[in-house]
Amino acid sequence: MTEKKAIQDFYSEQMSQCYGCGRLNDSGLKLKSFWNEEEETCIANFKPKSYYISFPGFVNGGLIASLIDCHGTGTAAAAAYKDEGRKMGTNPELRFVTASLHVDFLKPTPIDQELKLIAKVKEIKGRKVITEVKVFAVEVLCAQGEVIAVKIPETMIFNR
Amino acid sequence: MTEKKAIQDFYSEQMSQCYGCGRLNDSGLKLKSFWNEEEETCIANFKPKSYYISFPGFVNGGLIASLIDCHGTGTAAAAAYKDEGRKMGTNPELRFVTASLHVDFLKPTPIDQELKLIAKVKEIKGRKVITEVKVFAVEVLCAQGEVIAVKIPETMIFNR
Repeated sequence: MTEKKAIQDFYSEQMSQCYGCGRLNDSGLKLKSFWNEEEETCIANFKPKSYYISFPGFVNGGLIASLIDCHGTGTAAAAAYKDEGRKMGTNPELRFVTASLHVDFLKPTPIDQELKLIAKVKEIKGRKVITEVKVFAVEVLCAQGEVIAVKIPETMIFNR
Repeated sequence: MTEKKAIQDFYSEQMSQCYGCGRLNDSGLKLKSFWNEEEETCIANFKPKSYYISFPGFVNGGLIASLIDCHGTGTAAAAAYKDEGRKMGTNPELRFVTASLHVDFLKPTPIDQELKLIAKVKEIKGRKVITEVKVFAVEVLCAQGEVIAVKIPETMIFNR
């Protein structure tokens, strides 16, 4: 049995340096997002390290924002491939950057629990994908965000 | 001549663990925010490390969101002390958490420049402080955010 690949595992080398989700960034968070075909959601699990705190016992809001951001752009990439009827990882590569990010922090998020992120695509239109991301600790909804992602501008890509 | 203290340097030990701005978190970003009395703004400078990238050459959006978040809550603390006519660092300690965070990413942010954050208080009302934060690289406005901060709930504080 082969393990299911995360969306980020399909990114090219150049696109895999990201602090939040790049598989090649050894100082980064290495978030992994998995598309759930059946439920049309995208799932990521993440266990925060102890130093990602805000106040003793709780996760830093900036970290939560970072996870929502990368999970949102990853979900956007998967949704865009699907929308074009193409397989993840095929060329030309579809990658997204964040145009805007909104996060509502609903409850203090405990630092000692694995977090679960569940994303749903709200809209795909032209170069834009809007995603809603919910962050749970155990079964409790702690934060909720929206990521407006756009296809990466050519000016941000080297060697193309 | 004594060096001017940052807002975060007034936080108590318990409140100084934050990944984004805690002076005692050696794995963190240690953002330092300085109140500018004359202009009624709050200023922070931050040089991103090379691994805080998104795509080669550019800063990760999650890092920018983290900086805006901590700079916003720091500004809220300074503004609240001022609003109560009290000096920073006096007890009871005034500290804020983020209720919501919004970031518009206006331009790709270069990784090799020092970033400058400029915050202005838009509203203080009851337990809430709303702050607008602009992020510049050199003279270019790269991102702009809004932080709705609220006084930290008693349930998040140990030993009180």
